Amino acid sequence: MRVSRWYARYAWVGHVAERVLIETDGQRISAVTVDTDPPADAYRLPGFVLPGLANVHSHAFHRALRARTDAGQGTFWAWREQMYAVAARLDPESYYALARATFAEMALAGVTAVGEFHYLHHDPKGRPYGQPNAMGESLVEAAADAGIRVTLIDVCYLRGGFDRPVDGPQVRFSDGDPQRWADRASDAPSAAHVLCGAAIHSVRAVPADAMAVVRDWAAERDAPLHVHVSEQPAENEACVEATGRTPTELLAEHGVLGRRTTAVHATHLSGADIRLVGDSATRTCLCPTTERNLADGIGPAAALRDAGSPLCVGSDSHAVIDLFEELRAIELNERLASLRRGTHRPEDLLAAATTSGMAALGWDAGALAPGRLADLVAVAVDGPRLAGVDPDHLPAAVVFAATAADVTHVVADGRPVVIDGRHVSVPDVGWALDQSIKAVSA
Amino acid sequence: MRVSRWYARYAWVGHVAERVLIETDGQRISAVTVDTDPPADAYRLPGFVLPGLANVHSHAFHRALRARTDAGQGTFWAWREQMYAVAARLDPESYYALARATFAEMALAGVTAVGEFHYLHHDPKGRPYGQPNAMGESLVEAAADAGIRVTLIDVCYLRGGFDRPVDGPQVRFSDGDPQRWADRASDAPSAAHVLCGAAIHSVRAVPADAMAVVRDWAAERDAPLHVHVSEQPAENEACVEATGRTPTELLAEHGVLGRRTTAVHATHLSGADIRLVGDSATRTCLCPTTERNLADGIGPAAALRDAGSPLCVGSDSHAVIDLFEELRAIELNERLASLRRGTHRPEDLLAAATTSGMAALGWDAGALAPGRLADLVAVAVDGPRLAGVDPDHLPAAVVFAATAADVTHVVADGRPVVIDGRHVSVPDVGWALDQSIKAVSA
Repeated sequence: MRVSRWYARYAWVGHVAERVLIETDGQRISAVTVDTDPPADAYRLPGFVLPGLANVHSHAFHRALRARTDAGQGTFWAWREQMYAVAARLDPESYYALARATFAEMALAGVTAVGEFHYLHHDPKGRPYGQPNAMGESLVEAAADAGIRVTLIDVCYLRGGFDRPVDGPQVRFSDGDPQRWADRASDAPSAAHVLCGAAIHSVRAVPADAMAVVRDWAAERDAPLHVHVSEQPAENEACVEATGRTPTELLAEHGVLGRRTTAVHATHLSGADIRLVGDSATRTCLCPTTERNLADGIGPAAALRDAGSPLCVGSDSHAVIDLFEELRAIELNERLASLRRGTHRPEDLLAAATTSGMAALGWDAGALAPGRLADLVAVAVDGPRLAGVDPDHLPAAVVFAATAADVTHVVADGRPVVIDGRHVSVPDVGWALDQSIKAVSA
Repeated sequence: MRVSRWYARYAWVGHVAERVLIETDGQRISAVTVDTDPPADAYRLPGFVLPGLANVHSHAFHRALRARTDAGQGTFWAWREQMYAVAARLDPESYYALARATFAEMALAGVTAVGEFHYLHHDPKGRPYGQPNAMGESLVEAAADAGIRVTLIDVCYLRGGFDRPVDGPQVRFSDGDPQRWADRASDAPSAAHVLCGAAIHSVRAVPADAMAVVRDWAAERDAPLHVHVSEQPAENEACVEATGRTPTELLAEHGVLGRRTTAVHATHLSGADIRLVGDSATRTCLCPTTERNLADGIGPAAALRDAGSPLCVGSDSHAVIDLFEELRAIELNERLASLRRGTHRPEDLLAAATTSGMAALGWDAGALAPGRLADLVAVAVDGPRLAGVDPDHLPAAVVFAATAADVTHVVADGRPVVIDGRHVSVPDVGWALDQSIKAVSA
């Protein structure tokens, strides 16, 4: 099905517009007209129509952990052992099935592009697969079959900590040295729905000299460069002990920060760290539903924004997949920490999940405007959660009260992916999740 | 429709039981049998079946504020001005319509009993209606028509602060003196789906001598006694300044704490306050989605629990109506504050929304056991949010990943209220919300 004209009662075009005709020419938007009548051949989208959402930080396989780690006690590091156990069980086939189902869940939630922070490169013993990017191929095929675009963020991971080599499940993650990482990453799968990016897993997993290789690889390709930064206090302490610098200082010193760079988490930053991130216009990807699930803490979102860092969001560990939850948690966490309301405007939070998020992933999308990729998400406004809202408050209603279950229609690259709450190409997303998760669970 | 036998693949009977037959005799459960085959005449409930949920603290009319206060800045006190503006516009007819729609939204979310903290007693000029409990009647009728039970918690509210009389919209709240409050409350509407309770609005709104009247009124009737406690630091400061005591100390001194008492919020407590609440076995009603929305802060839930206070939850201002969100926020807030996971077991959180919550409202419900009121809630486990869960992790999955949208069936007092996600007696809950909210919005 290829529709070229979409019509919305309400749509977000930087403000709330009414009676909006969105015309497409293949995969891009060709015209947006407001205050107009619907042409007879237009597909009428219900509710409030937004640009497609960008899920900037994802580990697809973590979906298999949902609810299975929440009854126990401990810290992030105890959770990581459970996560490693799933990582150790995946092969290209089971990874494809799990990622396809997870990406389909994302599509149902309005996500049209995902940043997959991919480090499961090799077999469980650390040996390259016959096709060295077999696992990445699985992710790329999974995204295609789930109807969304993917930025395959190829992660460099070379050691288990500042003073130790990779161990156990981590051997899958490592290419051994930075040049072999670069060689494999350079051969990553390509397709129309795929962009490639690079990542430094973290300061603990990538030696300083290897950071330069990853940085230059991304710069040569004008590709997104992502890095986990200061998710946990222990990571900061280890970094300071080993290098005399905070993770952010170390990244800055090695030229990793900048406009193409996204710092993921950035939870435990000093004032100086915040200035380094902001002054370099490094983007910050907040993952609040994961950061609360993993007991990471509340990051300095407003301070980062004020310093000059554009914000975006990711569902990361997929404790839940609901970008509206991510967005409202940015503001609600700020309220819990400051006892003040209204630090983040709903409109700015919408931008985090659309314009800013798509930029973090390298996609020319995230706005309902001519020339952009034709990604549309319709959110029901007549259901129990949003009913009663007036047009002026639609951005606030979506950010503060909508859930993934309120998404009725999703269009990516001009193609319908979700219609009336049903995925077009994955007929039963629940079943796909159930089967693929049980295949990799103990 | 009166069904007497219900069958669940999975049900919560203090643990996860499989193949469960729940038999009812009118409005009560007569037998629960596990590991049994379904009789031919049983209604098969899908998913995971829980006891009906108790929404212990509600201001139904706040539903009209959803999303309309989130774009602005300020504190709780600025929000209160917006809330008062809606309060000033309600009459018995519009209050009925708004409460019916709001209670129907609760039913869709699995709530079978609500505690309505009711203080809109009089007309906008503070004059009693011809029928002095006309506004309470509206709430009682609304609950009946929405298919849920209500504990009408009649609130005593006599002054605007420690040093000032009621003013502006507050004149609706006041009966003038405690005896007139007691006289009116004694004439509150009664019906099979209604219990009456009493409330001291807060230490700022009820003078110490009047507290005794409310306390004794509740004691004579063995009725629930609720009180807002320390939601905001400013309330503590004003109380200490006026009385030399914290709100909790003042309540303790006047004999308000105890097993029939529920302290609502209890966000800003001292260590001594926590011991007073715990030692008296006073219940604590946490309202985390409201407490984050209103920038109240994170309360000491684990400390209260450890001191001996049973926890329960309410959706309070209805920023969202989703008790699973309330439950997980108890644990997730603790993780944000402590950087540790696993302070609250999922099973204990389920008890907060069921056994403990129903006890706080005076209902003999909250467990799937013979003799209890027949309240059942079925949560889909095959949708995108819960798919992949194994039976052992069902409590964690419901608490950490389910949303109100996953509730498919609700039975209250043995009667079906929601079937396949549709309300039985309110055919379009969204429309009912839309119309009733717009009728009271500026």
